[in-house]
Amino acid sequence: RRRYTITLLPGDGIGPEIVSVAKNVLELAGSIEGIEFGFKEMPIGGAALDVAGVPLPEETLSVAKESDAVLLGAIGGYKWDNNEKQLKPETGLLQLRAGLKVFANLRPATVLPQLVDASTLKKEVAEGVDLMVVRELTGGIYFGRPRGFTTNDNGEKTGFNTEVYSSSEVDRIARVGFETARKRHGKLCSVDKANVLEASMLWRERVTEISSEYPDVELTHMYVDNAAMQLLRYPKQFDTIVTNNIFGDILSDEASMITGSIGMLPSASLGESGPGLFEPIHGSAPDIAGQDKANPLATVLSVAMLLRYGLGEGKAAERIETAVLETLNKGFRTGDIYSAGNKLVGCKEMGEQVLKAV
Amino acid sequence: RRRYTITLLPGDGIGPEIVSVAKNVLELAGSIEGIEFGFKEMPIGGAALDVAGVPLPEETLSVAKESDAVLLGAIGGYKWDNNEKQLKPETGLLQLRAGLKVFANLRPATVLPQLVDASTLKKEVAEGVDLMVVRELTGGIYFGRPRGFTTNDNGEKTGFNTEVYSSSEVDRIARVGFETARKRHGKLCSVDKANVLEASMLWRERVTEISSEYPDVELTHMYVDNAAMQLLRYPKQFDTIVTNNIFGDILSDEASMITGSIGMLPSASLGESGPGLFEPIHGSAPDIAGQDKANPLATVLSVAMLLRYGLGEGKAAERIETAVLETLNKGFRTGDIYSAGNKLVGCKEMGEQVLKAV
Ligand SMILES: CC(C)[C@H](C(=O)O)[C@@H](O)C(=O)O
Ligand SMILES: CC(C)[C@H](C(=O)O)[C@@H](O)C(=O)O
Repeated sequence: RRRYTITLLPGDGIGPEIVSVAKNVLELAGSIEGIEFGFKEMPIGGAALDVAGVPLPEETLSVAKESDAVLLGAIGGYKWDNNEKQLKPETGLLQLRAGLKVFANLRPATVLPQLVDASTLKKEVAEGVDLMVVRELTGGIYFGRPRGFTTNDNGEKTGFNTEVYSSSEVDRIARVGFETARKRHGKLCSVDKANVLEASMLWRERVTEISSEYPDVELTHMYVDNAAMQLLRYPKQFDTIVTNNIFGDILSDEASMITGSIGMLPSASLGESGPGLFEPIHGSAPDIAGQDKANPLATVLSVAMLLRYGLGEGKAAERIETAVLETLNKGFRTGDIYSAGNKLVGCKEMGEQVLKAV
Repeated sequence: RRRYTITLLPGDGIGPEIVSVAKNVLELAGSIEGIEFGFKEMPIGGAALDVAGVPLPEETLSVAKESDAVLLGAIGGYKWDNNEKQLKPETGLLQLRAGLKVFANLRPATVLPQLVDASTLKKEVAEGVDLMVVRELTGGIYFGRPRGFTTNDNGEKTGFNTEVYSSSEVDRIARVGFETARKRHGKLCSVDKANVLEASMLWRERVTEISSEYPDVELTHMYVDNAAMQLLRYPKQFDTIVTNNIFGDILSDEASMITGSIGMLPSASLGESGPGLFEPIHGSAPDIAGQDKANPLATVLSVAMLLRYGLGEGKAAERIETAVLETLNKGFRTGDIYSAGNKLVGCKEMGEQVLKAV
């Protein structure tokens, strides 16, 4: 039997409910495939602020680093919204990404045939969409220095940040982009703003250079403003998109909304080595927290990504993905993806149904 | 009779065809309303590179500065795509914006009932959308210094840019946002990434401060990733959006695609004083240039914005806008907005029809 240690970071809002469901699914699928798990639960975000006064306690990071993979629920809530920067739940998440050095964030946006009506796009535009955004996650304007506030020559307060990429930072995320495209449909679209920004010119230069290592992958370039349009106009043109941290933040959220069911979308954040970080792309939904209304499927599918990308356990991953589809086929729906003729269930009941199908 | 001097900058691709139509419409609508125009045509973009070796000749800028308003067609084309930065057509446009100090870019995205089917969004989501993006146009990461390329401590090439805003830069664009919202439906949504970026924290701080001058306008704040989602999910929630240069570039393009007819969308760029810059939001469409296929209506509607925002000639503006709607009601359509049952016309014929309606 293979044995892995998983760090659970439930976080805030609906985080604990969805992580609890996903953990059960992981354990069951694992045990069927001969895998055993040890779990350590640690605080992050608002939950950590409440117990430890910081959004990422040192112990949380060290436990996470020593584990084989990290499963995160969600962070944030009204209570901490006006905190200063160092004490924002979000800062804990950024510190975790940096601390784990997970520079590659994979965000699939797949329109499931069962849920095509949930999209605000016309059926013929939405159906069949199956794209992956590969977002650089530990560089760019999120982490660039110098940053801060200063007083300019006119005596006015200014706020500033630095968008910066080095060649090696672009090279490694470009390779993840090409590898991902190779495993999918062989098409990579690199998104930048190279008609204006030097950081993007370097990006385009390096991505083009790295493409020679992947002659089997078709590379195109697109400006970010055009990409934001094309995602709406004709999303099926995209297979794999690779882009920087801030453009990836914006475009992956736009892409996820194409599916109309962001309660279904997982993500994986991977580094060169060390544990990966797996989380649903949706937020902590404080308005429905603790009411057994949350959709746990994004977290369940994150656990499938954890198995596939984090542990190399593809068979167990597939078992979970199949179970989710089966559960949808049986008509079970949480409120966010409910449509007439289906069976409305809560978070726990949805979990039970997936367990049955596993 | 009032008299104004207008600088015409046809630019590249379809630019000359659409500017020529819009000029005729401007002259006719003006003469009916007792306005006379003098025109000066100058080169910009690729056209300027070809004749003068730079994308914005000094004389083009000085003529533009001395006129009452500037009408731009479009810039760019394959021929100049691989030019170095200083010799890109885009650089000419950025220099023009900076030279005219037009810091406020107004980009309406309106779904016309006649064209609601052109949207890729479901009819019930698209119909009634009528929003305005107020984009900061002469600051932020587009112009921030330091910028460029350098070699880092590891001896690697890096590319970097600076996102920076001063209080007064935010204050003046915020005021344009509030004034615009006040004339519309009284709702302003300020978009930033204040959970991560200091430049955005300053942005939010200043917009909030300025809001006390506009107690009649309802201010909300939204993170840019969420805004990219909400534009797709429920675009009718937005009235006026105010945001920085790069977020405005991305979100205004996304918003324009909601309408499904970017060949219809005008824009206005305004400064504290001096001439405004008016242009369609679409590009130079080199693939259909010179074939009499382009849709001139975005440029015609830009001329309406020129009259209203640039010259304070609201009556002539309305005359043009009404003529455009009438022409659509009669069923005339260029290829980009054609649907069965309508009359397919070219650029020139569309211009003739608008002239008739004026
Ligand atoms: C919470 C926030 C800091 C984060 C980001 O901007 O990266 C989130 O939007 C995401 O995309 O995971
Ligand atoms: C051509 C380019 C420099 C420009 C911009 O990014 O501002 C364009 O995309 C626009 O939005 O007007």
